[in-house]
Amino acid sequence: MNYQAVLNYISEFIQPEFGKGKVADYIPSLANIPPTKFGMAIHMVDGQTYKVGDAEENFSIQSISKLFVLQLVMRHMGDMVWTKVGKEPSGDPFNSLVLLEHENGIPRNPFINAGALATTDMLMSTTQDASLLIRNYLKFISMNPAIESDPLVAQSELETSHVNHALAHLMKSYGVIENDVGALIEVYCQHCAISMNCVDLAAAILPLADKGYSAVCGETILPERNAKRLNAVMLTCGTYDSVGSFAYRVGLPAKSGVGGGIVAVVPGKMSIAVWSPELDKFGNSYVGTAALEQFTSLTHCSIF
Amino acid sequence: MNYQAVLNYISEFIQPEFGKGKVADYIPSLANIPPTKFGMAIHMVDGQTYKVGDAEENFSIQSISKLFVLQLVMRHMGDMVWTKVGKEPSGDPFNSLVLLEHENGIPRNPFINAGALATTDMLMSTTQDASLLIRNYLKFISMNPAIESDPLVAQSELETSHVNHALAHLMKSYGVIENDVGALIEVYCQHCAISMNCVDLAAAILPLADKGYSAVCGETILPERNAKRLNAVMLTCGTYDSVGSFAYRVGLPAKSGVGGGIVAVVPGKMSIAVWSPELDKFGNSYVGTAALEQFTSLTHCSIF
Amino acid sequence: MNYQAVLNYISEFIQPEFGKGKVADYIPSLANIPPTKFGMAIHMVDGQTYKVGDAEENFSIQSISKLFVLQLVMRHMGDMVWTKVGKEPSGDPFNSLVLLEHENGIPRNPFINAGALATTDMLMSTTQDASLLIRNYLKFISMNPAIESDPLVAQSELETSHVNHALAHLMKSYGVIENDVGALIEVYCQHCAISMNCVDLAAAILPLADKGYSAVCGETILPERNAKRLNAVMLTCGTYDSVGSFAYRVGLPAKSGVGGGIVAVVPGKMSIAVWSPELDKFGNSYVGTAALEQFTSLTHCSIF
Amino acid sequence: MNYQAVLNYISEFIQPEFGKGKVADYIPSLANIPPTKFGMAIHMVDGQTYKVGDAEENFSIQSISKLFVLQLVMRHMGDMVWTKVGKEPSGDPFNSLVLLEHENGIPRNPFINAGALATTDMLMSTTQDASLLIRNYLKFISMNPAIESDPLVAQSELETSHVNHALAHLMKSYGVIENDVGALIEVYCQHCAISMNCVDLAAAILPLADKGYSAVCGETILPERNAKRLNAVMLTCGTYDSVGSFAYRVGLPAKSGVGGGIVAVVPGKMSIAVWSPELDKFGNSYVGTAALEQFTSLTHCSIF
Repeated sequence: MNYQAVLNYISEFIQPEFGKGKVADYIPSLANIPPTKFGMAIHMVDGQTYKVGDAEENFSIQSISKLFVLQLVMRHMGDMVWTKVGKEPSGDPFNSLVLLEHENGIPRNPFINAGALATTDMLMSTTQDASLLIRNYLKFISMNPAIESDPLVAQSELETSHVNHALAHLMKSYGVIENDVGALIEVYCQHCAISMNCVDLAAAILPLADKGYSAVCGETILPERNAKRLNAVMLTCGTYDSVGSFAYRVGLPAKSGVGGGIVAVVPGKMSIAVWSPELDKFGNSYVGTAALEQFTSLTHCSIF
Repeated sequence: MNYQAVLNYISEFIQPEFGKGKVADYIPSLANIPPTKFGMAIHMVDGQTYKVGDAEENFSIQSISKLFVLQLVMRHMGDMVWTKVGKEPSGDPFNSLVLLEHENGIPRNPFINAGALATTDMLMSTTQDASLLIRNYLKFISMNPAIESDPLVAQSELETSHVNHALAHLMKSYGVIENDVGALIEVYCQHCAISMNCVDLAAAILPLADKGYSAVCGETILPERNAKRLNAVMLTCGTYDSVGSFAYRVGLPAKSGVGGGIVAVVPGKMSIAVWSPELDKFGNSYVGTAALEQFTSLTHCSIF
Repeated sequence: MNYQAVLNYISEFIQPEFGKGKVADYIPSLANIPPTKFGMAIHMVDGQTYKVGDAEENFSIQSISKLFVLQLVMRHMGDMVWTKVGKEPSGDPFNSLVLLEHENGIPRNPFINAGALATTDMLMSTTQDASLLIRNYLKFISMNPAIESDPLVAQSELETSHVNHALAHLMKSYGVIENDVGALIEVYCQHCAISMNCVDLAAAILPLADKGYSAVCGETILPERNAKRLNAVMLTCGTYDSVGSFAYRVGLPAKSGVGGGIVAVVPGKMSIAVWSPELDKFGNSYVGTAALEQFTSLTHCSIF
Repeated sequence: MNYQAVLNYISEFIQPEFGKGKVADYIPSLANIPPTKFGMAIHMVDGQTYKVGDAEENFSIQSISKLFVLQLVMRHMGDMVWTKVGKEPSGDPFNSLVLLEHENGIPRNPFINAGALATTDMLMSTTQDASLLIRNYLKFISMNPAIESDPLVAQSELETSHVNHALAHLMKSYGVIENDVGALIEVYCQHCAISMNCVDLAAAILPLADKGYSAVCGETILPERNAKRLNAVMLTCGTYDSVGSFAYRVGLPAKSGVGGGIVAVVPGKMSIAVWSPELDKFGNSYVGTAALEQFTSLTHCSIF
């Protein structure tokens, strides 16, 4: 299949979708991104790559970072991670404190804010500088040593992080959080504020498409078993409160972020990253979702 | 791969799992099933079949019937079905009335009781005898004209259906249900009480594994598009409140019933049906889930 | 104090309040009442009565009937009534099914719909014709043999009683309801549809103001202990989800109905009934509440 | 009536009640109080006082402090206080974050933790040293210049205040809290840790029993209107999730604390303070509640 032609076609196809979503505006650094940005990149398991549009422009990965934090925690703790975080879809808006109260402070899954605070806390307990570890991991798996966290974005997030503080304190009251809440929120905001582009991200998740192996790095990053499991968690929990609709429309394991990025996996074949800042009401990129739907439709690569 | 050998192995492998679950006991007809029953059947898209254990013994399909009702409604109404039922995981026990109150009487998905009442109601509005239609559809797609609803089971369900009455009345208060509540509950109990065996069920869901085509019937039963979508809905909503864990462990689209049956789909390859009456705390067959987990592990057929 | 002058003053004082509330419109018989009706009556413990406006015009007592059903059940069962219904404010809209699910089908209090269904069910279990018993009780305690249930209103309520059916079926699933749900809803709708006027109602609740004794009947209707307890339940549960605001503004035990009636008690002194059909957002008479607030303010009779 | 004899009788009457409740154990300073302490004091509006048992022994007033913070905020802000806190019973455990999420961060009432954090925040916004103001107010209205906050208790509370931190951060995310969360929690813990005895407390709440006037101070402390309103808020919200049962059994406006203290008001007649450390499952003094129930029963002073 001529994937470059498919990407070119999609970049035209999605033009009428601009203006239907809304750029995240809770911090200035996100609100100021031009809304019609669009980039897409794919990385085949054999090493070939294709890209279109703004695929090499950096954006804030936001919640996509939760996927990499989970990878690092699973590496250190294995299945013990699931003693402090569930793996079921939340069925509630992504900040909800309700479920924490009903479930002894155990967040529903590692991709809602509460769950990512829990995994970040676990990572902090196993390493001296969790922020550094996350950045170094991303530099390695995307083979781009220039990847950094944007200090302005991190600072803005920190200043508007009252709900995350509330979540962390509530979990601490249940003994789920071990580290100091202030330090935890700082690490959390730093990894949400990491800047990457579609090409980097497609490379970074290639192991999930190839049983843990990365043609980019030339080595196995994850055990096959973990790659499959992360795909399962992405499919059932990766796109906020629209996992059912996303599976129905797109049919791929994916993780989205409010910066407008989405990463997706076609097991055995390729990894995909797409970016466009306007969000649907659930917090997923409006145009990015349309692009992915069109992609699986054209290439028949849905896992279903 | 020698699938018969795999099935034989699994039927040994699962022996230590008996006694860890609990047979459904809310009606006598289910409570009296011997707990150590185990059957499994697979149907390849090329027509080959394999079976083991009690694969030809009939059991009550219960909630698996919801999958076939949904197929029939989609045939009549297409995507309009989603105006009266959602397609997101519920995140709450399968009888919960809470979400109905918060979401204008629209059930979260067609596989919780409320959702299946809604799809059954839609089917009743499009046909004179919905019960007959469902039975005839199952007879055809499994090529077994002997399939019937067990009147004793249906009667027992009817007598203990207070929660379903409550769900239906609440949805009627929102205008989601059109037909008489009494008549609706009767049709609902009848299709839950249908008796089938693993071989029948594997045949019946073969179209979901082969883009809508059934080698059993020799014809296309569903549009490819619907087959994929039904698989997506099964993956995110098919196993009550453990869809995340089920995807993590088994990695296949599946629908379970409290009779102990589970049907699962390996897209492009085969359909699977397994039966064992003891249930885990979520209502899925304990031994059946273990058998499916072992199956995907041995044959590497997880979709992830 | 010249209570007639106070009532006359209030009937002028409340004129500007018309148009700020909204007449109940869920059944035609209620929706067609002229919105500017206003009547008020008080009954002193020494037997004197005062009235103003439309105090002798009949209206639908609706939820006020719950107070009399509770009296009859307490007479038969004493404190055993509290094994099937709580006595705490609900904190949720008056139809909510949520709490029933979390609290084993035990309604929060006897003045929400679920609770009144439970008390009506208990009454049905202790008598052959609960509807007749309720009507006869009201005829006696208000000394008006002409009191009846309006069959048109009862029929309309029956036809729109899907939520009450849902509540009753859910409670039946927990074993809280003993009688047939259809028969229960019928009795419930009949007592909600009873027509009375302010003079009747003030007479009917006089025992609550005088330690159980009624100067109207010339005999003791309730034990003193029950009179005090019913006042306590009215104060904390009698005015839907605004009990706190009502206590703050009015400061009297009271029970309201969506027909626009409110009955209130000044312990040791008098009983009060007021009627005006426009409701506030909680379901209490808008003008009636304003009249009661003005009354306690002018006569310094708040219990606080 | 011989009130001293009544108090003496009650101090005997409650002896069999010891051992049925449980002393608060979340901080060591509370857990170490001997469980069989019992003291009771009443202050008549004419200035007479009566006391029994450990009525002059200091204990931690805990949530009773919320009543005095509310008085101070009402003095400064009048009814504007109700723009940031409701006055309805919560219907949920006293720490619940759920309602905050559903109601834009506005706590249900000023006597749950969230509500008292909101009133403490308002007080901090109107004065330089809110802690000092609260202590000085208590010294004045109880005419005891020795009243202080126990620094050990305050420190312990601070160290276990994760839930309060969560509540405050969540409210800050809605803009309900103005001050720094850390500073707020400190002031909050300090006023909860104030030590007083029954005689002090009965004096301190005398204004609520006498239209705002205090015979202890010889001057009017609150407007009559506010005294009545505070009594109404206490009746509907003062005893955690058992306001209905408390009104049913005791029939007086009251505020309790987990230190085992309860203050209660007989409007127009007297103020009461009782202390006994064992708590019922709602957090109210088990023996204290029994003592108050016996008191209103013997003296016929229930407001109902």
